[in-house]
Amino acid sequence: MRSGNRSSVSARLGTVLIVGTGLIGGSFALALKAAGGAERLIGIDRDPGNLDRACALGIVDQAASFAAAQSADLVLIAVPVGSFGTVLEQLAPHLGDKTVLTDVGSTKTEAVEQARKLLGAKFPSFVGGHPISGSDASGADAAFATLFRGRRVVLTPVTETSTTAGDIVAAAWQLCGARVERMDPREHDGILALVSHLPHVLAYALVERVAQDADPGRLLENAAGAFRDVTRIAASSPELWRDICLANRGALLKEIERYRDTLDQIAGYIRCGNGSDLDRLFARARELRQSWQVRGAAE
Amino acid sequence: MRSGNRSSVSARLGTVLIVGTGLIGGSFALALKAAGGAERLIGIDRDPGNLDRACALGIVDQAASFAAAQSADLVLIAVPVGSFGTVLEQLAPHLGDKTVLTDVGSTKTEAVEQARKLLGAKFPSFVGGHPISGSDASGADAAFATLFRGRRVVLTPVTETSTTAGDIVAAAWQLCGARVERMDPREHDGILALVSHLPHVLAYALVERVAQDADPGRLLENAAGAFRDVTRIAASSPELWRDICLANRGALLKEIERYRDTLDQIAGYIRCGNGSDLDRLFARARELRQSWQVRGAAE
Repeated sequence: MRSGNRSSVSARLGTVLIVGTGLIGGSFALALKAAGGAERLIGIDRDPGNLDRACALGIVDQAASFAAAQSADLVLIAVPVGSFGTVLEQLAPHLGDKTVLTDVGSTKTEAVEQARKLLGAKFPSFVGGHPISGSDASGADAAFATLFRGRRVVLTPVTETSTTAGDIVAAAWQLCGARVERMDPREHDGILALVSHLPHVLAYALVERVAQDADPGRLLENAAGAFRDVTRIAASSPELWRDICLANRGALLKEIERYRDTLDQIAGYIRCGNGSDLDRLFARARELRQSWQVRGAAE
Repeated sequence: MRSGNRSSVSARLGTVLIVGTGLIGGSFALALKAAGGAERLIGIDRDPGNLDRACALGIVDQAASFAAAQSADLVLIAVPVGSFGTVLEQLAPHLGDKTVLTDVGSTKTEAVEQARKLLGAKFPSFVGGHPISGSDASGADAAFATLFRGRRVVLTPVTETSTTAGDIVAAAWQLCGARVERMDPREHDGILALVSHLPHVLAYALVERVAQDADPGRLLENAAGAFRDVTRIAASSPELWRDICLANRGALLKEIERYRDTLDQIAGYIRCGNGSDLDRLFARARELRQSWQVRGAAE
């Protein structure tokens, strides 16, 4: 079914450098290795303990330094969005002529701008990327080779981006089992603000409301499946989501504002006892949600 | 482990009348039957097709009319909150001297008030109830005997409620595998407004925001696990949740207001680039959410 995608993949990569050997970077490494897509995988992590785990788990063959980027065919930067600039600065002086760079950050406009500024003449070698899959787990121990199978990866090349670089990054993701789509960085950020960043803010806010109560335990005793599912992602990494919220603040604030309007509209219906409009709104939401479930299941 | 609970159960009920043979009413009937807790189960449903299914699936032994309440030991009213009053009016003239009445509505203050008004001298036989479990599925076909196993059922007897009636209802739920707790109706509604009714409103509102977009399909293509989980309950019955929102409007509007304040607070942090307070709030939410996961898993 996806053979059309895969037929474009030919060359095996030599050295692949993973910066950030956590859930995403580690899973990419495991998937690429399982597919025979790289000769050698090396890793960098700010947390020496996590890097040790990544080596022990066979996620990377060995630990590396930023200077190793010189000989890498591909560098995947998989660090929290707020650390991307710092990592890029440390990598920039070491990039080889043929080194292709990509990232996995959940926001793309700021990442592309940072890359443009920090990479200078090497900017065409950078291809922004975002695998649309994840988990509230984190760290090398959470990584697994099939995380991206059948999942969507959005690449955000811009006018200056080298076509070859884009193809190399796309091929690597396809080897990991992902479906690759290209999108404008700003469009990506607008869409993700609504379908991913806002839901995280909503979940954190709901648990925060419980935390503010005099007796959160009493509330949680009476919580069931609805609360469990709506708040699952409030167990996600605070640092990661702080960074994403700040990096995409323009689009996200707009979505929070619109969401508030919708919430006000619903509160208005409830206040006035307007059952018919409430029913109509809930029914429209249910219909859309159910139609998506069906499509999701058919994948 | 729960034998202390069960030791109080002695008498097997004769006839049990289920009004509303859907997910909750049907599952109660199946569980009670499986536990040998009733001699005969009979049912009423406003939807003849659903009642036929309930008979065919063995959920009830036969269809009944409201007059059958006369000979029932227990009547379980499992209809949307907004239909509770109408059902009670139809039942009231037919209640036998020993007939105990209970319901399963997600809001209790209004239900108790309606029962007080409509049942008159028989009000002591009514015990408000709310099984804290459910599903976005509905109808007799969705019913299953283990829905309540290990789940909490809140009963809301008031001063006038007969102790015997309370014990009979508690025993029936325990036979279904549930853990029974008693609570003041108003306290119940305040707690559920935050941990159940608000999450439903939040989920419906999020899907409604997607529905308002010019291209909802494009948004949903890029949605993943976060959106899936936060919006699962937006597939719930619109009628059911319209009724719940209206029946508990006071407590729910208060919770929506407080939630808006928390959302504003988060938006403020994002707007000012206040990463440290954002981090702190997200971390506190994560800690509480994770502590609850652990307790939930240990049950």
